[in-house]
Amino acid sequence: MAKLLIAYYSRSGNTERMAELIEEGARIEGVEVARNSVGDVKADDLLDYDAVILGSPTYYGSMAAEVKKLLDESVRFHGKLEGKVGGAFTSSANIGGGNETTIMDILKALLIHGMIIRGDSSGDHYGPVSINAPDSRAEAQCRRYGKRIAELTRRLS
Amino acid sequence: MAKLLIAYYSRSGNTERMAELIEEGARIEGVEVARNSVGDVKADDLLDYDAVILGSPTYYGSMAAEVKKLLDESVRFHGKLEGKVGGAFTSSANIGGGNETTIMDILKALLIHGMIIRGDSSGDHYGPVSINAPDSRAEAQCRRYGKRIAELTRRLS
Amino acid sequence: MAKLLIAYYSRSGNTERMAELIEEGARIEGVEVARNSVGDVKADDLLDYDAVILGSPTYYGSMAAEVKKLLDESVRFHGKLEGKVGGAFTSSANIGGGNETTIMDILKALLIHGMIIRGDSSGDHYGPVSINAPDSRAEAQCRRYGKRIAELTRRLS
Amino acid sequence: MAKLLIAYYSRSGNTERMAELIEEGARIEGVEVARNSVGDVKADDLLDYDAVILGSPTYYGSMAAEVKKLLDESVRFHGKLEGKVGGAFTSSANIGGGNETTIMDILKALLIHGMIIRGDSSGDHYGPVSINAPDSRAEAQCRRYGKRIAELTRRLS
Repeated sequence: MAKLLIAYYSRSGNTERMAELIEEGARIEGVEVARNSVGDVKADDLLDYDAVILGSPTYYGSMAAEVKKLLDESVRFHGKLEGKVGGAFTSSANIGGGNETTIMDILKALLIHGMIIRGDSSGDHYGPVSINAPDSRAEAQCRRYGKRIAELTRRLS
Repeated sequence: MAKLLIAYYSRSGNTERMAELIEEGARIEGVEVARNSVGDVKADDLLDYDAVILGSPTYYGSMAAEVKKLLDESVRFHGKLEGKVGGAFTSSANIGGGNETTIMDILKALLIHGMIIRGDSSGDHYGPVSINAPDSRAEAQCRRYGKRIAELTRRLS
Repeated sequence: MAKLLIAYYSRSGNTERMAELIEEGARIEGVEVARNSVGDVKADDLLDYDAVILGSPTYYGSMAAEVKKLLDESVRFHGKLEGKVGGAFTSSANIGGGNETTIMDILKALLIHGMIIRGDSSGDHYGPVSINAPDSRAEAQCRRYGKRIAELTRRLS
Repeated sequence: MAKLLIAYYSRSGNTERMAELIEEGARIEGVEVARNSVGDVKADDLLDYDAVILGSPTYYGSMAAEVKKLLDESVRFHGKLEGKVGGAFTSSANIGGGNETTIMDILKALLIHGMIIRGDSSGDHYGPVSINAPDSRAEAQCRRYGKRIAELTRRLS
C-alpha cells in the first residue's frame, strides 16, 4: 500500500485544516496517510513515504522558516527522495499576497530532490490555495488535490 | 509505443543542438521521438504525444516569444494535455542570466496544463541548461534528461 | 517633466482598462504619460521614457507572447534602459491562475535591463492584479500604482 | 549620511566573504555600512537603515531557513520598511542549483515590504551570485553591487 505524508506548519489553523481536507481526498484513493505538523517531523521521516505533500502559510511570498528548516535538513540524505511524488499547498491572508510563489518555492525544492509533481488544468494549477480559512471552493480543491496526488503515487508505486 | 515531442526555438543553433542530444537520450528508452522547431509545430500537434519537452533560449529571464506563442495558442484545447509528461530546457549566454527562471516558466505553463514533471537530484535540477554551445557537461545533462523523461513517460503510459 | 510609457496587450479590454486607470494615477503626480498597445510600440520607443510600465493578461502563468516579443526585441539596445523606473500589471481569468508569476516575469525582464522597481507593502505587492474586469478594489490598486511609479520616477529624474 | 545594513547567513564562509566585498563597494559611495550575521540581527534593527541587503546560501532553490526567519519576524512592523532600498546575494554549490530563484525569493520579500530594488544590465542581473568561494568575477560583482545599491540609496535619501 502506497504511503503518503502530509506535513504542514500552521499558526492560525488554516493550513492545518487544509491538511485534513487533503488527507480526506487521499484516503479515497486507498493510500496510507500520515499527517503531521513539521515540528513533529524529522527530516529522515520523509524517507519512509512514497509521496510527500508540504503545506505552509504564505509569509513574505515564500514558505515559513519552519517548513524551510525541514527542507534544509533533508540535505543529509540528498538523492534518496528521487522518484517519489511531491506536492504543496498554502494558505494566505490575501489574494495577491504571494501564495503562488510560495507553492512554487516548495515545488522547486521537491524538484531539486528529484521528485515528481503534477499540475491541474482545472483546479488550482500548482496546488491548493486558501485565502484565510478554507471556504467551500478551497475545501473542494484540497480534497481534489489529495485524491490526485494519491492516484499518481499509486500508479508510480 | 510511447510518443515524445521535442519542440524548440533556436537562432544560434545551441538550443537545437540540445534538442538533438535530448532526442538521443530519449531513444535509448525505446520511445518514439519527434523533434521540431516551434515554427513547424501547430498547437494541436501537442495532442498527439504522451510527452512534450519544450526548449528555448533564455531571453530576458524567460522563454522566447516564439515558444510562448505556441503555449498561448494551446489554450484552445485546454485540459486535453492533462496527465501527459512535460519537460523544459534552455541555452543561455551567461550563468546568472535567467536560465533557471526560463525553465521554470515553461514548467509552470505545463503544470497549468495539468502535466506531470520531474526534477533531478544530481543533474541540472529543473531541466538541462547550456551556457552557449553545449559543452561535455551540458551534453551529458541533455542525454540524461531525455532518458529520464522518456523513462517516466513509458512508466505512465 | 518626467515621461512615463504604459504599454499593454489586451484582447478582452480588461488589461487596457487597467492601463487607463494607471495613467489616471500617474497624471496626478504631474508626469507626462503615453499609453499604447504593444502592437503600436516599437522597441526603440522605450528609450524615450524615464519609466516604462508593461501590462499583460496572464496566459499560462506568464506574459502574452505579444508582450514578450517587445522585450525580446529590446535586446538591440541592451544597457540603454539602465536606471529607468519599471513596473508591471496583469489581468487574469482566475485567482490562482498565475497572475503573480506573470508580473514577476515582466519585472525580472526589467531588472535584467538594469531598471529600478518598487513593491507596495499595503496594496498588490508586486503590481496591480485584476481578476477579470477591474472591480473597485482593482481600480484603486491601478490608480495607486500609477501614482507610486510616477512619484518614484519624478524623484529619480 | 545614508545607512546600509548587510545581513547574511554563512556556514562555509562563502556568503560572509561576499558580504565583506559588498561592504567594500558600498563604502566607496560614502555610506555608513553595518555588516552582521542574521543571528546577530533582530528584525527591529532593519528599521534603523535606509537600505538592507540580505545574503544567503542557496539551499533547495531558496534562502536558508535562518534568513527566512528574520523576514518572517519582520511582519511585526510591516509597512515600516516602505520606500527603503533592498538587495540580495547568494552563494551556491553549483551553476544550475537554484541561485537565481534564491535571490528572487529574497527580492520578492523586500518588494512585499514596499522596498525599492534595482537590476543590473551588465553584471549579475538580479544580484551577485558566487559558485562556491568568490572567484575574481564574483568579487568584482559583489563590489559593483555594493556600490550600485549605495549609490541608489544616497540618491533616494
